[in-house]
Amino acid sequence: MEYITLAHGSGGRLSRHLIESLIAKHLGNPYLDQMNDAAILPSQHKIALTTDSFVISPLFFRGGDIGKLAVCGTVNDLTVSGAIPEYLTLALILEEGLAIADLERIIVSIAATARQARVRIVCGDTKVVERGNADKIYINTAGIGFLRTDVPVSPAQVKPGDVILINGTIGDHGIAVLADREGLEFETPVCSDCAPLNILVDQFFGPGVKCMRDPTRGGVGTILNEIARQADVGMILYEESLPVHPAVVGACDMLGLELLHLANEGKVLVIASPESADEILARMRGHELGRQAAKIGVVRAEDAGRVVMQTALSAKRIVGMLEGEHLPRIC
Amino acid sequence: MEYITLAHGSGGRLSRHLIESLIAKHLGNPYLDQMNDAAILPSQHKIALTTDSFVISPLFFRGGDIGKLAVCGTVNDLTVSGAIPEYLTLALILEEGLAIADLERIIVSIAATARQARVRIVCGDTKVVERGNADKIYINTAGIGFLRTDVPVSPAQVKPGDVILINGTIGDHGIAVLADREGLEFETPVCSDCAPLNILVDQFFGPGVKCMRDPTRGGVGTILNEIARQADVGMILYEESLPVHPAVVGACDMLGLELLHLANEGKVLVIASPESADEILARMRGHELGRQAAKIGVVRAEDAGRVVMQTALSAKRIVGMLEGEHLPRIC
Repeated sequence: MEYITLAHGSGGRLSRHLIESLIAKHLGNPYLDQMNDAAILPSQHKIALTTDSFVISPLFFRGGDIGKLAVCGTVNDLTVSGAIPEYLTLALILEEGLAIADLERIIVSIAATARQARVRIVCGDTKVVERGNADKIYINTAGIGFLRTDVPVSPAQVKPGDVILINGTIGDHGIAVLADREGLEFETPVCSDCAPLNILVDQFFGPGVKCMRDPTRGGVGTILNEIARQADVGMILYEESLPVHPAVVGACDMLGLELLHLANEGKVLVIASPESADEILARMRGHELGRQAAKIGVVRAEDAGRVVMQTALSAKRIVGMLEGEHLPRIC
Repeated sequence: MEYITLAHGSGGRLSRHLIESLIAKHLGNPYLDQMNDAAILPSQHKIALTTDSFVISPLFFRGGDIGKLAVCGTVNDLTVSGAIPEYLTLALILEEGLAIADLERIIVSIAATARQARVRIVCGDTKVVERGNADKIYINTAGIGFLRTDVPVSPAQVKPGDVILINGTIGDHGIAVLADREGLEFETPVCSDCAPLNILVDQFFGPGVKCMRDPTRGGVGTILNEIARQADVGMILYEESLPVHPAVVGACDMLGLELLHLANEGKVLVIASPESADEILARMRGHELGRQAAKIGVVRAEDAGRVVMQTALSAKRIVGMLEGEHLPRIC
């Protein structure tokens, strides 16, 4: 490993290797070592802090744009950490020659999404680089929120018997961006699911929620593998229960993509206690961002650290983490 | 104004115009509208939050590198807001093909600078873009700190009669980066002043400190103009009292650069009450980052909103804000 490859940014195995072998090695401390989406920091009101850069191409896609994505991504990272998002930063890297009209369209989208998510952009930074040293615009948002409870949701709480829920269809963001980028047409167009999840989580959050994650880069498969390893449990998914847009299934078949590695930007995986799962599912379905919510699997003691899918034909296959990079710059 | 130019990133007049006419217009709220380096947010312990992206070229320069700069820049923005920096985020945008050895050198520098500044990197993000869509590496750091006192330092406190102090020589960072980039040689090499200022500010902070700013992009001239406008006061600077490295004077003469528009990365401008200024100056000089500290001017009622320099020959000239972009990608 001498040079950076696109796979280092995939959110999959190589990303993890880069972070563990190089970044965390030098920068490790108890907060960073939690390796969750947001760091939980001590204070009177426990603070969650997170950051994400967005380099998506194209800037505008069916269902969203880089600005909406930048707000949702950070809001969602705070949300799945069990925090109520409050304040966001906004840092822009602009390429010389970017059309001001495009920049304004993106800023307007940021403002609208921040209002929808009830967060405020409170500080920012703008840098411009010479033509050819960026691709139009890159955006970083960092954010802080305050924890809903003193006990943060985390993989440490996950136990065999817990139920795996998701609030709707899988893989829409990945396929929508790919379609826009490559000019693919589907009979029923797929829109990105890009959305702020805090409002949805308000509806169902409670003591039965053990762990939440947003399956962005790397997808449901990679994220569940991460939780399974951190919690030292196994997981079984039921293929027939996975909510999925028919055009996404078609695109996966046609292009040889793994549904469970596709990026999502408006989905939350919830690991719930068995006794609270039905109530949480009902509350999800009562909100517009959870109409197609489903129980997709269960946590078990067998095959600790592994995620297994039971297919429609009752066969079983291991679901791995994303390796390499199939869809660069998906967020 | 239809396309982004490099001057939009200069920290000068066009940057300000872009932010006011486009970004703040859509995103305005009472916290963002403070337009200070860090947003001061309500909480039991008042929180300061800031963000900065770093796109400097070259990555390694005499006196520092992009990693050291990324930590110092955010630590210093929190520091001049009157906060004690505590937690930083770290988001990397890497260009495909970046040498891993260079990345590691930068990460090691980040770790060392964070230790020196007594802050912790608590969360991060890594994205990779295709070769040709960035220039090796761009870094964003956001940071939070907790206010030293309930009354934040701010231009609102600045009054005629206050004294303007700086902790050392002006323009070193700008000239050091320019020299490395262009292969200029000076008899006495100029090093970037890049340093975390929180440790220095610990030495002198007290009720006599009315306002602090770090004169990075745009330099001392632009930052003092901003304070003068926000506080609706005039300022007079004494040319003979400005601490400056002889090679920096020489470079400014040779290249036609304005000393007061050169970037600094380890300097703090302090506006102090007249009765506390001597004590603050003495404490600055007692610390290694303040050996060449000086009183460089005073605040006055005349010429409100303007900064005037009294030259060695007793002539006066108006010091403007930086316009255009002379040294792109200085931070």
